[in-house]
Amino acid sequence: MNITIVGLGLIGGSLAKAISSRTSHIVFGIDRDPKVLDEALADGAIRHDIGLGALEKSNLVILALYPAQCIKFMEQNASRIRKGAVVTDVCGVKKSICDALTPMAKKFGFCFVGGHPMAGREQYGFEAAKQDLFDGASYVLTPSDGCDDGVERIRELALSIGCGRVVLTTPEDHDRRIAYTSQLPHVLAAAYVNSPTCPMHVGYSAGSYLDVSRVARINENLWPELFIQNRDALVVEIDFLIQNLTRMRQDVASKDQDALTAALRNSRLRKETYG
Amino acid sequence: MNITIVGLGLIGGSLAKAISSRTSHIVFGIDRDPKVLDEALADGAIRHDIGLGALEKSNLVILALYPAQCIKFMEQNASRIRKGAVVTDVCGVKKSICDALTPMAKKFGFCFVGGHPMAGREQYGFEAAKQDLFDGASYVLTPSDGCDDGVERIRELALSIGCGRVVLTTPEDHDRRIAYTSQLPHVLAAAYVNSPTCPMHVGYSAGSYLDVSRVARINENLWPELFIQNRDALVVEIDFLIQNLTRMRQDVASKDQDALTAALRNSRLRKETYG
Repeated sequence: MNITIVGLGLIGGSLAKAISSRTSHIVFGIDRDPKVLDEALADGAIRHDIGLGALEKSNLVILALYPAQCIKFMEQNASRIRKGAVVTDVCGVKKSICDALTPMAKKFGFCFVGGHPMAGREQYGFEAAKQDLFDGASYVLTPSDGCDDGVERIRELALSIGCGRVVLTTPEDHDRRIAYTSQLPHVLAAAYVNSPTCPMHVGYSAGSYLDVSRVARINENLWPELFIQNRDALVVEIDFLIQNLTRMRQDVASKDQDALTAALRNSRLRKETYG
Repeated sequence: MNITIVGLGLIGGSLAKAISSRTSHIVFGIDRDPKVLDEALADGAIRHDIGLGALEKSNLVILALYPAQCIKFMEQNASRIRKGAVVTDVCGVKKSICDALTPMAKKFGFCFVGGHPMAGREQYGFEAAKQDLFDGASYVLTPSDGCDDGVERIRELALSIGCGRVVLTTPEDHDRRIAYTSQLPHVLAAAYVNSPTCPMHVGYSAGSYLDVSRVARINENLWPELFIQNRDALVVEIDFLIQNLTRMRQDVASKDQDALTAALRNSRLRKETYG
């Protein structure tokens, strides 16, 4: 396949490196920063830099942009996509993207398959990209009707670059689950380190501090958009968390050891059962 | 030195393994479970099992028991401790232990130095003990007056078994900091996995879920006691966290992207500054 990757940041750059080093597909890159394109060419992450013309030559286009940019890029360039090609994105929210891009796909005769490779790092940009970023990761797809071939094409690609599994679901289901598994941990890590006590932790922190706070090193230009686009599901999850914290707080304050033991037994069993 | 370790669980067992494999001190073990003593003798973690008589022969006694057990053990056995010996504990709370054991030390003529080696695992018992558990860890000491020699003895021992640093402070200061760096992450990990959404996460979880939830696999027989003994400081920290979460929840619900960006920028800068 000819594959165009639009946006060579952490995710797009890692996809480019993984595809170019682990498959025989030919990767074209599009990025607004010419320096990034030069770097990507120099290290072999992309084969060609021919600008927007790459869209016409590709069987698969991967949009690795922030959600609003992604929609804007397609509003400007959907007409350049080859008929019958497959377009996918990598955004952490799916409903808003699929709602915007599925009608464009119908109009211009390509297939759109929403995608979310569940991998990341606390750094960003092409310089943080790694060809092994997706090793063992889940790659979630939210296909629209009539895109079975496109799904197969992306599934094979995902597995060939190291993903552990490809999961199919609806955009709504994806967004609801991701609110819990990805957005909420980022919210709570940020809330945790924003405590006034945080600067006093040095010398007193063990693994639990480090683990819980790791993703507090967050890209503040990306995540607010993801949170807001998925606000209904995320607010529900934050409310569950606040409820559980409030209950444990009351049990601590009232010295209710039995209630705390029951809550911690439940959390241990869940962790042992569900991983 | 002759060193007696009372309680060969995760922490006591790891201390025994580390001291016996990395120093020339002679380790005696005391445990209520004869099978654990046999195992510890067999793998060289302890040199001798002579029961409570070990207390009379030791220059250093390390109490590696849960807080209430620790106090109870000393109420029954403080008179057996050699005059001039140093006694320390490993409990995750310090004020309640120091308040109970410092007067006993004065009465029976030994030194008590509160201790907290900041290391752990999500498993427990002697079978989870590892000689490298303390590599790089902070070892916090809360000495009472007139125990300078005892502090030096424990400091040397801590560094010789791999600890990265020894930190001296008061019991009150320790408990306040630990509420944030250790107890709060355990509370929030437990609250997080106790969400009704948790069982649906499989296939949708990346590193952030795994990191934030790791310590939810918690020892429910130990931690409620630690939480309750440190309840004033812990409740303050839970309240800070709930406040921050509530503010972010409102910002998400009201689509206040600027406020979210500011909160996440702050959390990123803190993580980059303080680790």
